[in-house]
Amino acid sequence: MADNFCNVYLALIHFPVYNKNEEIISTSVTNLDIHDIARLARTYGIRQYFIVHPAPKQQQLVQSVLDFWRLGYGASYNPDRSQALQLITIADSLLDVTERIEAAEGMRPIIVSTGAKSSSSSVSYPALRHQIANSRRPFLLLFGTGWGLPASIMAESTFIVEPIYGVSEFNHLAVRSAAAIILDRLLGSNWWDGSLSC
Amino acid sequence: MADNFCNVYLALIHFPVYNKNEEIISTSVTNLDIHDIARLARTYGIRQYFIVHPAPKQQQLVQSVLDFWRLGYGASYNPDRSQALQLITIADSLLDVTERIEAAEGMRPIIVSTGAKSSSSSVSYPALRHQIANSRRPFLLLFGTGWGLPASIMAESTFIVEPIYGVSEFNHLAVRSAAAIILDRLLGSNWWDGSLSC
Repeated sequence: MADNFCNVYLALIHFPVYNKNEEIISTSVTNLDIHDIARLARTYGIRQYFIVHPAPKQQQLVQSVLDFWRLGYGASYNPDRSQALQLITIADSLLDVTERIEAAEGMRPIIVSTGAKSSSSSVSYPALRHQIANSRRPFLLLFGTGWGLPASIMAESTFIVEPIYGVSEFNHLAVRSAAAIILDRLLGSNWWDGSLSC
Repeated sequence: MADNFCNVYLALIHFPVYNKNEEIISTSVTNLDIHDIARLARTYGIRQYFIVHPAPKQQQLVQSVLDFWRLGYGASYNPDRSQALQLITIADSLLDVTERIEAAEGMRPIIVSTGAKSSSSSVSYPALRHQIANSRRPFLLLFGTGWGLPASIMAESTFIVEPIYGVSEFNHLAVRSAAAIILDRLLGSNWWDGSLSC
């Protein structure tokens, strides 16, 4: 199967996000969000995976993980992992992310928020998949850590994608799991009819 | 949406699995495999999530995580998490798992292996989804940690499901990510045509 990329970026937001009481907080970066989502991003042809945190200490923590796997012992021990982590860029804020994409692409990305709550303006997966495959503009998928993306970020989004339901009303997935399912639905080789996404 | 369960069990195998040189090893349990996959299992209506490790110390580690979230502070702090972890059963081996399912169901499960390698006997997701929805027998989905399930376990399986491809040849996903995508493909509300799986 040839490499076949959609023009999609992904950002994992650590600030601003909600805590369980819907107050604005920042969360800590976690090693497995770095690794799991980078490997997903590589699998689904994401252009760049932005890890967004305004705190220099947290950014340094991400950088030290990247240095180990991209330059240090990890790069020779596990080259696949290294290849996936090449996609990561550390960013200060959502504005920083959109400015970097605009600098690279010459146009602003279409922002897509994800979350566990239903909204009257939610877009379905097939509809968004079609938009992504047929747009000239880049897309930016946003995932929130903690208890999810706040209203201020939702308000900057062109699309809010439907929550994920399995077979029950329980939809408390880890952000890593939600990212896996959403990338597969939007960008995966169209496994039920054999077509490709882009 | 009403709860609507297929008759499917899931097991995460820590022994026997391959290391990167295809030697048989056991892996350590990880906190996030416990949590992320339990939350997935709850979302997709899995009956029980077996964590398979023969070593008593590793089993105790899992038990201490379960006790914290099912009985301790975690149960009141995050009841959704507690509800997901109720699905976990610790088991010694694959034989232990199949015997427990047979004791509960009165028949042996149909075993489905997952992995990153293609096989001539691989089954497609739509075909397996149809089998699961229309069979009277329970299904058991096996996921391998480390570098995946060994030939000895593959040989005990009725089905081996296709590897996951995104849009590239890179398919080095975390087992947590693979589990998310596979459960969504096999058991998710049929989000592209609105039908339910079971």
